[in-house]
Amino acid sequence: MSSLSDYRQVARDLSVDAVALVPGPNFNRAFKKPFMSHERPFLAVIPANGPEAALVPNLELGSWALVGFEGEVFDWRDQDGYHAAFSALTKHLNIRSLAVEGQVMRFFVSDALKKAQPDLEIIDGEKAISGLRVIKTEEDIAALQVAIEISERALARVLEGVEIGQTEKQIEQALVQALFAEGADDQAFAPIVAAGDNTARPHAKARADYRVKKGDALLFDFGARKNGFAADITRTFFVGDVSDEGRAVYETVLAANLKGFDVTKPGVTAHDIDDAVTGVLEASSFADRIRTKTGHGLGREVHEAPYIMRGNTEVMREGMVWTNEPGLYQLDNFGVRIEDDVLVTETGCRSLTSFPKTLTIVGR
Amino acid sequence: MSSLSDYRQVARDLSVDAVALVPGPNFNRAFKKPFMSHERPFLAVIPANGPEAALVPNLELGSWALVGFEGEVFDWRDQDGYHAAFSALTKHLNIRSLAVEGQVMRFFVSDALKKAQPDLEIIDGEKAISGLRVIKTEEDIAALQVAIEISERALARVLEGVEIGQTEKQIEQALVQALFAEGADDQAFAPIVAAGDNTARPHAKARADYRVKKGDALLFDFGARKNGFAADITRTFFVGDVSDEGRAVYETVLAANLKGFDVTKPGVTAHDIDDAVTGVLEASSFADRIRTKTGHGLGREVHEAPYIMRGNTEVMREGMVWTNEPGLYQLDNFGVRIEDDVLVTETGCRSLTSFPKTLTIVGR
Repeated sequence: MSSLSDYRQVARDLSVDAVALVPGPNFNRAFKKPFMSHERPFLAVIPANGPEAALVPNLELGSWALVGFEGEVFDWRDQDGYHAAFSALTKHLNIRSLAVEGQVMRFFVSDALKKAQPDLEIIDGEKAISGLRVIKTEEDIAALQVAIEISERALARVLEGVEIGQTEKQIEQALVQALFAEGADDQAFAPIVAAGDNTARPHAKARADYRVKKGDALLFDFGARKNGFAADITRTFFVGDVSDEGRAVYETVLAANLKGFDVTKPGVTAHDIDDAVTGVLEASSFADRIRTKTGHGLGREVHEAPYIMRGNTEVMREGMVWTNEPGLYQLDNFGVRIEDDVLVTETGCRSLTSFPKTLTIVGR
Repeated sequence: MSSLSDYRQVARDLSVDAVALVPGPNFNRAFKKPFMSHERPFLAVIPANGPEAALVPNLELGSWALVGFEGEVFDWRDQDGYHAAFSALTKHLNIRSLAVEGQVMRFFVSDALKKAQPDLEIIDGEKAISGLRVIKTEEDIAALQVAIEISERALARVLEGVEIGQTEKQIEQALVQALFAEGADDQAFAPIVAAGDNTARPHAKARADYRVKKGDALLFDFGARKNGFAADITRTFFVGDVSDEGRAVYETVLAANLKGFDVTKPGVTAHDIDDAVTGVLEASSFADRIRTKTGHGLGREVHEAPYIMRGNTEVMREGMVWTNEPGLYQLDNFGVRIEDDVLVTETGCRSLTSFPKTLTIVGR
């Protein structure tokens, strides 16, 4: 339970009496085991000073016993409801203020806390609590690397099978099957498999009625989840042939992606990176095709800090991982995005993704 | 937008000025399109009287335009933050009380509402709001049926490939691949594939180091998600051979499952069903192997109302769907569970699942 001391420090930094964690990425980090967030409240409270305590659904007590939690446990059964357990918990804790994960804790839990102790001040400590996950440990990086390798093997497998005349949906299905065949625990997110004009939509959905044709761009944005960590990779190919325009757009996006690697090192800001990467796109003849910021942090969540966008003055530090994903999109025409997962190192950065990025023609 | 009138009625029933929906099962029901719940607040507010309004992330405006929402829309951009939009929304709405989905709305959204309007009273309206999904429409039932048929085809495909000596993890992987090959949009939940002693754990995880052997029970609890609806099916088989004890336990669980069909009709309570089903198990010589309640509602969520357990006086009505999943579990020995998805009809009930339940020996 050594990692709980991190949360005590967060409580002190936020000037609150305690931090609460509910099942999700921080909970998994703290307790080293995955717990699901269901219809039953389940939370651990870690005071700035003093022993921790937890409120646990009775049917999870067996699993909870395995995490080595040393604090008091207040359990409750479905047939009794959970309000008495919340009252016992708050009475035991005797705190005045509590920082919670605003993006994870749901209203029925914060509401139950307020009902148990109406004068409890609850603040949104999401940024500081999840901030503990911003710098990846060696174990985190190894886990990310495994998720990425599974994803890249799956993509290679899918590309071998791409044929002109297949639907986007068929290719998507092949990708998902390949992810699991390569050992994914789950998909990190619903993948994007888009061809032709659909590649121009950054959040496209695969169509069952669109058949891939010669000359189409073909975009894959996807990732495996493995051991709690998520990969997030994008590659764009061309089917059978590529137009001069397709080639020019591709080379522009690739240059922007490479610029991201050039400028990344400890001490630069998220703003600096987006500014450099987007600057390459802006300096091209395709500046009107820019739709998105450069990227986001990656780890236990597919989207997490730091967000790589202009205006974000967050300083990049060794151990951060971010997605370098510039793109150019023109509606009713096509789009290109290239996305790597980048680790900030002591002196610069390195790519955790290694799938080739030279313009590639695919399909039979 | 005719379905929004349902939510106006919920607001009146709860004596609040409005109902708020955030992306999730109710939002998808109301707006007929899937929206993701990300790090950005996104909500629709439907007053008891007067026009609806929404707070929408700027980058979702394109998708939002397609839902036919007639109310005012307050959008916000990442670089500006969302607090001004919440202020504009609450000022525009001019309400005093709001019912939210306590199981879906996260703290950062309710907190932003309270910051924009400190005197706004927020109550947990989950039960009434999600209650609108308890009675399935014909379209809902058709969608569930599709998800179930995909799941059953996947199971048939996997059984053909089961061999003695495979690991639980290998069989799980084959199941997941088969689900997607048969057309699933996603897994409804992380499937349970368990053999031997692992079948005795109702929430077992597939083991990479356990090889299926002759005489093992082999349990599959899984489901496809398709078009927003989730299947949830369990079947237990025996590998190569079955012991007398295995057969006796199996027949007891099957009798309990069949009892669930016998007693289900409009007017009985969830308590009555659990009491009858569990009663069969209690009357057997395996009563000490009972671990769980009989089941739960099923639809857009894998676990939803009605919960089929003693003490729940909720009355079953035509159009409800619930999981009939009695089981018997003995640690360090084995477990058996049989789960069907049951639709309450005008005069009784019928099974949406049709995978055979006669004791079956599998594996080569």
